[in-house]
Amino acid sequence: MSNYHPLTETEAIEIASTLPGLFSAGAKLACREIGDGNLNLVFHVSEPKTGRSIILKQALPYAKVVGESWPLTLDRARIESEALQIQADLAPRLVPKVYAYIPELALTMMEDLSDHVILRRGLIEGHQYLEFAAHIGQFLARTLFFTSDFGMNQQQKKIQSGRFINPELCKITEDLIFDDPYTDSPNNQIDPGIMDVAKALRSDHELQRHVAKLRYGFLTKGQALLHGDLHTGSIFVTKHSTKVIDPEFAFYGPMGFDIGAVLANLALNFAAQGGRAHGQTLIEMREYLAETMISVWEQFEQHFRSLWATHCTDRLLREANFLDHFLAELLQDTFGYAGCKMIRRIVGLAHVADIDGIEDQTLRNRAQRAALASGVALIKIHPQATTIHELRDIVIRETNCQER
Amino acid sequence: MSNYHPLTETEAIEIASTLPGLFSAGAKLACREIGDGNLNLVFHVSEPKTGRSIILKQALPYAKVVGESWPLTLDRARIESEALQIQADLAPRLVPKVYAYIPELALTMMEDLSDHVILRRGLIEGHQYLEFAAHIGQFLARTLFFTSDFGMNQQQKKIQSGRFINPELCKITEDLIFDDPYTDSPNNQIDPGIMDVAKALRSDHELQRHVAKLRYGFLTKGQALLHGDLHTGSIFVTKHSTKVIDPEFAFYGPMGFDIGAVLANLALNFAAQGGRAHGQTLIEMREYLAETMISVWEQFEQHFRSLWATHCTDRLLREANFLDHFLAELLQDTFGYAGCKMIRRIVGLAHVADIDGIEDQTLRNRAQRAALASGVALIKIHPQATTIHELRDIVIRETNCQER
Repeated sequence: MSNYHPLTETEAIEIASTLPGLFSAGAKLACREIGDGNLNLVFHVSEPKTGRSIILKQALPYAKVVGESWPLTLDRARIESEALQIQADLAPRLVPKVYAYIPELALTMMEDLSDHVILRRGLIEGHQYLEFAAHIGQFLARTLFFTSDFGMNQQQKKIQSGRFINPELCKITEDLIFDDPYTDSPNNQIDPGIMDVAKALRSDHELQRHVAKLRYGFLTKGQALLHGDLHTGSIFVTKHSTKVIDPEFAFYGPMGFDIGAVLANLALNFAAQGGRAHGQTLIEMREYLAETMISVWEQFEQHFRSLWATHCTDRLLREANFLDHFLAELLQDTFGYAGCKMIRRIVGLAHVADIDGIEDQTLRNRAQRAALASGVALIKIHPQATTIHELRDIVIRETNCQER
Repeated sequence: MSNYHPLTETEAIEIASTLPGLFSAGAKLACREIGDGNLNLVFHVSEPKTGRSIILKQALPYAKVVGESWPLTLDRARIESEALQIQADLAPRLVPKVYAYIPELALTMMEDLSDHVILRRGLIEGHQYLEFAAHIGQFLARTLFFTSDFGMNQQQKKIQSGRFINPELCKITEDLIFDDPYTDSPNNQIDPGIMDVAKALRSDHELQRHVAKLRYGFLTKGQALLHGDLHTGSIFVTKHSTKVIDPEFAFYGPMGFDIGAVLANLALNFAAQGGRAHGQTLIEMREYLAETMISVWEQFEQHFRSLWATHCTDRLLREANFLDHFLAELLQDTFGYAGCKMIRRIVGLAHVADIDGIEDQTLRNRAQRAALASGVALIKIHPQATTIHELRDIVIRETNCQER
């Protein structure tokens, strides 16, 4: 890493212009740094004359969150780049294209998605994306199936898992999702208006037993190459396109963690809509979100079953019809991890704009309470969950309960 | 590996004599190759004058089983040597000392255990080792606890697991233990006198569903650094000493696989005693074996609980009292894996001398049927198992049932 240094916009242009076949020869290029500066630099390099553009994403050697800074491996740029390329092979239309990766600069050059919007932003603004569930269901099914012992050579899978050992970024998840929310951690950011329910988590021993099992699953269940941070801020959309970005948390873990992340963020938006929309608009947006939660799982399951039928490589697992058992357990994991993801976004370090952006404190606290109660209920019910409809029903019930 | 070649006895002496501090200066050394020649060369180098001696174990680049030969990575010698050194740090008196490892020759130089006997041989001959259960319980507890997310830094554990990715040797287990016995595989070696019960395994769908889950656990549950092949042929004993050898199958897997291996091999010997011993001798040996099965688990559990109490590093898992849940599930895994290990030794490729060495066919088939029925029962009951006594009772019951 001896040549590593954070790039300037001028250097980003120089590097981008070396990429063959994208920009015109001798083109004049423009560049803006558009990252949030917490973990990465993100350069948008464009050729105003042709409208062609590209993204250069460079990992920074530290993480900056709430003013604090801690060192963070640049190897995550390699992991992100390799994960993106695997995902691109498996689900080509559902991730940005990677043009090049420059290891010594921890720099990935990839497709510009400026014609898309971040799903979280779109949902906050009340837009519906009717093809999203089918897209993300397919993304989840294909990336999880084909990186698992079901869909790839089991010896190659072991070797591949070694390329995605990601201790530092896993540690962030282990702390922020599976530890801090359940104790009096200085990392926690808690709205004073919900201190009572936030504190109640710390003495809920039944809840903590469940979270302990889910945490242990995150530590030990190497089922598939996960995205690892699949919230609605890592997904770009248009009405007809879905692109999953930012797999720097990728590692071999429990499949339910990725599926749960998508569902949790839809559920957080569901709770948040009560602080934004009204009347028929609110009803319709929530109907859309509720249907999408169901549909994400159903699309996933349908694709996964079809891949199993045509591509499962394991004789015994096939003949013993292991799939039904596996999917039943995966649904339970998904409930549990969805619950953990909801709770951490209310009382942990990193929140979501869906809810924090609600300016009225009463409405905001109501949404926070609904999300927190949904998360707790999902975790507590997860070992008994049998259909995805129960997840939707819990989110609706807990939200109604707060808004009544 | 360019300098790799299988050593001659003369070369083994040359290499051994370079080791400082063991043999006298200019000593005349003797050497015998004592391996079974299937996977490794094993040289016993000694100085007749002083009685000092050493073992040189060299991996061969192929595996030879029943006349066939297939290529096998020499990297397993590194894995074995590194696993031995980790085990030596964690349980110093319970493994041979490693003096040196020479990567380019895939050669480990280690303590000679010629004053010990192989446990399987000792048990076949009707000897009792009253300290064995305490020793192996401690070995299991310490090696499994301190390589797991409970007893070591969880980020270091992830990195360590990357050093023990062992695809080729895991594949042997996946095929020979979790696949072949349940299908008409050319690898299987089945005594014609038990063909009926061997074939029944292939149409027992309930059994296969359970085996599929255990197989999937072997593929995905990275709980601790396992020995990976902990049968009674991998254990040297005297009345007061126990030494575990040959961890070339080491990888991060489910803890119950190691514990189950020990119990399965005790149970196989239990069944086999009916073909060897008689009268009071038989009764006493079986009492010893039955008590030892119980005691191995109890000693393991007691040590493991004590290590948890003093050394568990995970705040949430500690506070949520995850240990009770974990041990309950581990006991169930242990039953399941013990069952798989028993079945493969009766109908799979590699058998055990305890049973195959019974010359009388009727007695041998009776022992085989008892072991097979015990294995099937252990697998089928494993998700409901609650105490180790049930394991002992199943083995006694199925053996009585055949001998009645």
